[in-house]
Amino acid sequence: MVIPLFFVFTFLVASSQASVQDFCVADLKLPYGPAGYSCKKPSSVTENDFVFSGLGVPGNTSNIISAAVTPAFDAQFPGLNGLGLSLARLDLATGGVIPMHTHPGASEALIVIQGIICAGFIASDNTVYFKTLNKGDAMVFPQGLLHFQINSGKGSALAFVSFSSPNPGLQILDFALFKNDFPTELVSKTTFLDPAVVKKLKGVLGGTN
Amino acid sequence: MVIPLFFVFTFLVASSQASVQDFCVADLKLPYGPAGYSCKKPSSVTENDFVFSGLGVPGNTSNIISAAVTPAFDAQFPGLNGLGLSLARLDLATGGVIPMHTHPGASEALIVIQGIICAGFIASDNTVYFKTLNKGDAMVFPQGLLHFQINSGKGSALAFVSFSSPNPGLQILDFALFKNDFPTELVSKTTFLDPAVVKKLKGVLGGTN
Amino acid sequence: MVIPLFFVFTFLVASSQASVQDFCVADLKLPYGPAGYSCKKPSSVTENDFVFSGLGVPGNTSNIISAAVTPAFDAQFPGLNGLGLSLARLDLATGGVIPMHTHPGASEALIVIQGIICAGFIASDNTVYFKTLNKGDAMVFPQGLLHFQINSGKGSALAFVSFSSPNPGLQILDFALFKNDFPTELVSKTTFLDPAVVKKLKGVLGGTN
Amino acid sequence: MVIPLFFVFTFLVASSQASVQDFCVADLKLPYGPAGYSCKKPSSVTENDFVFSGLGVPGNTSNIISAAVTPAFDAQFPGLNGLGLSLARLDLATGGVIPMHTHPGASEALIVIQGIICAGFIASDNTVYFKTLNKGDAMVFPQGLLHFQINSGKGSALAFVSFSSPNPGLQILDFALFKNDFPTELVSKTTFLDPAVVKKLKGVLGGTN
Amino acid sequence: MVIPLFFVFTFLVASSQASVQDFCVADLKLPYGPAGYSCKKPSSVTENDFVFSGLGVPGNTSNIISAAVTPAFDAQFPGLNGLGLSLARLDLATGGVIPMHTHPGASEALIVIQGIICAGFIASDNTVYFKTLNKGDAMVFPQGLLHFQINSGKGSALAFVSFSSPNPGLQILDFALFKNDFPTELVSKTTFLDPAVVKKLKGVLGGTN
Amino acid sequence: MVIPLFFVFTFLVASSQASVQDFCVADLKLPYGPAGYSCKKPSSVTENDFVFSGLGVPGNTSNIISAAVTPAFDAQFPGLNGLGLSLARLDLATGGVIPMHTHPGASEALIVIQGIICAGFIASDNTVYFKTLNKGDAMVFPQGLLHFQINSGKGSALAFVSFSSPNPGLQILDFALFKNDFPTELVSKTTFLDPAVVKKLKGVLGGTN
Repeated sequence: MVIPLFFVFTFLVASSQASVQDFCVADLKLPYGPAGYSCKKPSSVTENDFVFSGLGVPGNTSNIISAAVTPAFDAQFPGLNGLGLSLARLDLATGGVIPMHTHPGASEALIVIQGIICAGFIASDNTVYFKTLNKGDAMVFPQGLLHFQINSGKGSALAFVSFSSPNPGLQILDFALFKNDFPTELVSKTTFLDPAVVKKLKGVLGGTN
Repeated sequence: MVIPLFFVFTFLVASSQASVQDFCVADLKLPYGPAGYSCKKPSSVTENDFVFSGLGVPGNTSNIISAAVTPAFDAQFPGLNGLGLSLARLDLATGGVIPMHTHPGASEALIVIQGIICAGFIASDNTVYFKTLNKGDAMVFPQGLLHFQINSGKGSALAFVSFSSPNPGLQILDFALFKNDFPTELVSKTTFLDPAVVKKLKGVLGGTN
Repeated sequence: MVIPLFFVFTFLVASSQASVQDFCVADLKLPYGPAGYSCKKPSSVTENDFVFSGLGVPGNTSNIISAAVTPAFDAQFPGLNGLGLSLARLDLATGGVIPMHTHPGASEALIVIQGIICAGFIASDNTVYFKTLNKGDAMVFPQGLLHFQINSGKGSALAFVSFSSPNPGLQILDFALFKNDFPTELVSKTTFLDPAVVKKLKGVLGGTN
Repeated sequence: MVIPLFFVFTFLVASSQASVQDFCVADLKLPYGPAGYSCKKPSSVTENDFVFSGLGVPGNTSNIISAAVTPAFDAQFPGLNGLGLSLARLDLATGGVIPMHTHPGASEALIVIQGIICAGFIASDNTVYFKTLNKGDAMVFPQGLLHFQINSGKGSALAFVSFSSPNPGLQILDFALFKNDFPTELVSKTTFLDPAVVKKLKGVLGGTN
Repeated sequence: MVIPLFFVFTFLVASSQASVQDFCVADLKLPYGPAGYSCKKPSSVTENDFVFSGLGVPGNTSNIISAAVTPAFDAQFPGLNGLGLSLARLDLATGGVIPMHTHPGASEALIVIQGIICAGFIASDNTVYFKTLNKGDAMVFPQGLLHFQINSGKGSALAFVSFSSPNPGLQILDFALFKNDFPTELVSKTTFLDPAVVKKLKGVLGGTN
Repeated sequence: MVIPLFFVFTFLVASSQASVQDFCVADLKLPYGPAGYSCKKPSSVTENDFVFSGLGVPGNTSNIISAAVTPAFDAQFPGLNGLGLSLARLDLATGGVIPMHTHPGASEALIVIQGIICAGFIASDNTVYFKTLNKGDAMVFPQGLLHFQINSGKGSALAFVSFSSPNPGLQILDFALFKNDFPTELVSKTTFLDPAVVKKLKGVLGGTN
């Protein structure tokens, strides 16, 4: 042991007023900007800010798609704010489908925990890359591209996904097109879908106009 | 004049071997990476590398959508490589439509040069923001979100757009879904569209399976 | 149509409290930071936040340079905040000149809409890249370098420019040197210009000292 | 259906030569740079480039720490290159420990799949944040900080982790200090550990000098 | 002189409300976020905000390590906020040591001003790179890796260092492990150090548990 | 000591093929891209790649400005490549001046080592921030703005500067305007300087046209 007992404890003073660099737990009540939420005061941060238990609870798949997505983005898991990544849980009951969607601001990586999942994405040149994934298989979905996950096994399936941003966004194709007041005429003109098809889907999904 | 004639010219030597910082004109034949193309040798760069005349030529709108997009991304305009922005020209004949699409890696700003254009985008919460734009109006489309442009005037329309990346990507919804060999069953399952609708659009757009 | 009518609308809950990722319309009254302005509350955002009509109005060129720049940066066009790009309009009457300037924080791309413009930039190794641009020609000016635009045609000229940042900054060389209280002695020492030349330009441009 | 059969397929031409933006599957044989590996030719990319099965295989925990880390960084999973994230699998047998370490270039998020794990990190101000995590619990470890994971349950434990970089790096404290030829005198001087302690650990870990 | 006296001064209006791009002097009382502190109002910024005199004062080396670090991070030097770099001063009396540490969020470059310093860092593959530096020698320490500096000359030594971030963070290994309430059992389990060694160092450095 | 002698050394295998994350020493012979130079093979990297001795040698100030800049950018100091910072040495003999210049791609921080230096920069709104700096004083110059350094003391002065980029670029105003073949007429038109003044400076600095 080479250190005498009279060691001077405070010879090095790190930036004491605020520890911007280490972490920035989101304070959802303060203003936020393009880089994320404002930071909670370091003095009120505890270990609980860095832990999130919501992903341990299966999502409710008693719905038409027999699937559920449970996000752990910065709004749900404030400790992620500013750290460049986030998580989500995918539950797919038998026959379940996470329909075609994009994350406008992030790439995604998926790991199958249980069951069999057929997952894929479509590239800008319209090539489709899809594969059947088994337990332990991982797949990556590049930023902003349309992608999907389907339970292609017999039982239920579970996967965890991570994103390259604390707030990846989530745009579900059918919801974007049909679950709002976007006029049927414009939807039809911009998607080549017949107005009758559009109106029917709007009816199903709760859209108007 | 305060400088004597015997000024020593070379008192300051900037980094002489390569001017990485100033610019990096793409050499399309060299390997490229996540940040863009490799740089052309500075000694062979000329003013022409920074000029692109392709946007001065109207796109051919003799097609079903009566519209055309002419890109000036880094692959077409190598001088943009690494500089964080790119351009494109939109031509819309009467009734023309740039159908629903996304740019996976960039935000977009549009300026109407001629005619009247109805443009809009759909946010992650399914809110649709759209407006009729006149000559000189600008609109911004945030990164990765579905958006569209429609000629809503009586004559032809022209717009120039810029992107926040030298290679913004372009994923056209109908092409992504129907202009490839993506099996009809999977398209249907992930979009809620009836297989017959999918097959019809695949037929129109040249898709198979 | 494969979706039954009892579809459960809310099976997927996106981050509901704040949509940081999609967009961040600037609230100019809130504190701002290195990444831009704080975001306006999503509930008060409308389509008008994403549209800017100021670029449709010709700038007033009745001045000594016979030219005008109309910016659409984040301070003028709050919808651009955080999206990585901005716009401006250049009006050049006959003989008009946008004098030597830099954008400290962005690259620029220009498209000629009307007239003939001689534009160029100077690289770090003092090489000058300039060219006469016609209608439809585009030119790119790498970040932070001195550049200029001159109306080299017979009538007036119009161009739109875009930047790789929502707040590119604008430092006009003559204004920086002569339109302030920067002491003549220091200007002279650091530019090699004779004090008499400096004082004359200060007089013209409204500078003192 | 609003599209006539004579639809012109090729009205929109995306950047055809290289799809830099969509993805950049690593070609490990080409030169690489600060942003990652060079990209494999798009024409030779298949769905298999985006899938990695190595995380499905339990790591060998028959070692002194009764634990194993299986990385899926860009070098192992080339499809991740340039996409801003990566993955790893942690296996901890009974009593297993992932010893104190840092990832110099990334934040980390962990999800417990099986068992009970005590995990924590140490902040710059020397505060320790640690907690016992159960199945489904997630924890985040901010970039560059010392952290650890311990199997604190009775059976084996399994966790998957994700990183905010395709190549997060991994610096294991004891290996950095003792498993190399770093002279004992320097280790001792810079860590306050007695030379005898250093030499003993070097002996155990295979270090010299 | 080519400018008439009636020059119109205000032909160009830069973004007048806030100069986000030029600089963002930290206002330590406002909320801060992942990108740094909020900006002080431009109207109250003076030249003094961009100048810091604290590095001119030798640090107090009358301590057990005979060394001192004086930081000029954004919290001490608010003018650095958002500008991507910061500074510090290292004083090493005879025999002085800056012990093993990391900067979680920045690379570092050091210049020896006086004396002789042995400096080094340890890479992820456990290779140690170290060298004896003389006056005028510079050395770079890549982001997040363990590194150290030792006065290896006969007199005192002085160095200035710069960082690639306004808030690089500073994690000193011994303080992180022993100067807190981190339970001895956990320290021992995660570092392979004998509990007695841990307790002794905790005693010296003021740690508990 | 808690580790048995039969410790298994290789239980953790970091990414073995290439250590992209730790560092990327520039190989100046390989292609380079927007993010910097390609990396030297890790196996041929030594401690010397991270050390640069060129800043220890005073620059030659026997020139008209009685000053010299010695850069340690990535082209001179390959170990800096990809690490986000670089260095330079400023020597100013009595009366020496580093004339008005910009760094297009980086902010700068200066520390006075010897002598008295008057330094300043000009903001986009034409405000000049300048101050006389003494030994130990530091000053920061925000990215891309015009700035200068003048020896305002009686003896020689020495300063070290750091930049927020491995290749900050350097555009010296007078060289950019007068030390090339940029036609006098264009210089005059874009700077408001009389053609005679331009020609005289071109003569002094070696420019033509």
